[in-house]
Amino acid sequence: MSPKIISSWVGMTKTDAAVQTLSDINPDVVLESYTLNITTVKGFETFMESLTNKNFRSNMHGSGVDLVLSCVDNYEARMVVNQACNELNQTWMESGVSEDAVSGHIQLLIPGETACFACAPPLVVASGVDERTLKREGVCAASLPTTMGVVAGLLVQNTLKYLLKFGQVSPYLGYNALKDYFPTMEMRPNPQCSNSACMERQKEFILAKPARDAAAKAQMEAEASAGTTECPIHTDNEWNISVVDDNEMESSSGHNNSAALPEGLVHELPNADEFQKPPMQEQIDDVSNDLEDLRKQLDALNAGL
Amino acid sequence: MSPKIISSWVGMTKTDAAVQTLSDINPDVVLESYTLNITTVKGFETFMESLTNKNFRSNMHGSGVDLVLSCVDNYEARMVVNQACNELNQTWMESGVSEDAVSGHIQLLIPGETACFACAPPLVVASGVDERTLKREGVCAASLPTTMGVVAGLLVQNTLKYLLKFGQVSPYLGYNALKDYFPTMEMRPNPQCSNSACMERQKEFILAKPARDAAAKAQMEAEASAGTTECPIHTDNEWNISVVDDNEMESSSGHNNSAALPEGLVHELPNADEFQKPPMQEQIDDVSNDLEDLRKQLDALNAGL
Repeated sequence: MSPKIISSWVGMTKTDAAVQTLSDINPDVVLESYTLNITTVKGFETFMESLTNKNFRSNMHGSGVDLVLSCVDNYEARMVVNQACNELNQTWMESGVSEDAVSGHIQLLIPGETACFACAPPLVVASGVDERTLKREGVCAASLPTTMGVVAGLLVQNTLKYLLKFGQVSPYLGYNALKDYFPTMEMRPNPQCSNSACMERQKEFILAKPARDAAAKAQMEAEASAGTTECPIHTDNEWNISVVDDNEMESSSGHNNSAALPEGLVHELPNADEFQKPPMQEQIDDVSNDLEDLRKQLDALNAGL
Repeated sequence: MSPKIISSWVGMTKTDAAVQTLSDINPDVVLESYTLNITTVKGFETFMESLTNKNFRSNMHGSGVDLVLSCVDNYEARMVVNQACNELNQTWMESGVSEDAVSGHIQLLIPGETACFACAPPLVVASGVDERTLKREGVCAASLPTTMGVVAGLLVQNTLKYLLKFGQVSPYLGYNALKDYFPTMEMRPNPQCSNSACMERQKEFILAKPARDAAAKAQMEAEASAGTTECPIHTDNEWNISVVDDNEMESSSGHNNSAALPEGLVHELPNADEFQKPPMQEQIDDVSNDLEDLRKQLDALNAGL
């Protein structure tokens, strides 16, 4: 952001500055900002109230939001978001950048269905002190806007895929900036998770299996019966595929296939040499006739000996 | 960008708007902007002059820039950048987003060493018309700022790695947004490339092989001789590794190893059960003594038969 914008933020909270910027970009979006520490009892209550507020989505069960995105910088705050989302059965997407700024990740957490943040805790955590004040020996703490930018881009792209239902939402996507390596994996919930709300969601998910199976079967059957009707299987035809007669194929192939390209497009490379056609039946007959002739000549020679 | 910023751009060229924004972010950077069509003869000349301008880097050979980044939207302009960089032996990094906005790529092109943009041309190209006016049937032309953001982030991250010499610069990195798939590959130059400047750079690269090999050998030997001196091999110790005596290891292992963590950190999970120690030599001796006893008893039984 430019200093001109940043100077207009002086004295504002981070959240209010974000609201101002987002309102400038799209004034039609309704935004709410909260500045609070969600790891306190009071802060957690306010956080839960903001998630269950149904001002905008009165028809939703449980929480009033479609998706929670977390971009916090410490373990404790992630565990609080995890607790709230497990209690409300709220899907969320977590993101993070490593302390040395050269790796990051995004993770989709669906209560009961995928691992929650407490299902596989880190081996070492802060205790009794603010973990942001901890300095680990030998670790170069850094901040790279490029790494943040890539991770934020991947988070928002996966948010679009999730909300607008296209493509595949990654369950976990890592980013190793030094090697441009992007590991992916799926994490099932831990049946011995220490989070009781996660354990409740896991039980509900298992109990709902027959209903999920029945719904999947009904959908399969509906699709199968729809397939027997005369309407096209695919309403769109992304690759412009059409069924053509073999003879038609033959006549359109060959050196004049550039005629099939739309106006303004040409083939960059020359066509391959035409494939040598196999000899016709008549030619083969000629060969066998020649053999017959040769045999007669040989017989004549033998007879002459 | 917010409408407030965009409104300040009205009447400006894209390049001047970019210069204004970048100057606001960092006034110490010297910026030059050109608005021209590099695919014309005059435009190409101006482009070449801007690359060979050594106002800022008088000590450089060939061109006056460290790296060219291309973010153009058509094949013709890429081929022009390719021509200029091949002629000047200038390393460049190419980037692009697909017409349907759900995939993109970045590519590092080092003249003579890696494939140039003409080494593997696309199968179909525009001819005689502005390719931006072409509309391909069945292709949904779209623009996603998220895809652009991820590709731009990867391009700038690799630029940092290249210029600041850390990590591995990707020779080619693809981005499939629908599947979060990031293919990588290396492309060697085409020995039958249609670009004559590329062919010249390829010859130079092959001729310089003995010099490269000698330099690599000299560096290896320098590193080997440096290793025989008493100074530490690694000046930094990222993982805080130290060589300790076996007895010291033993005494520090066990249940009290959390004492090794800095203040404020605790192990989140309990320690594993202590590994069962193998029986001591005395116990093994006892077993063999028991066997001796049994044999004597057996002998006594046999003698008594």
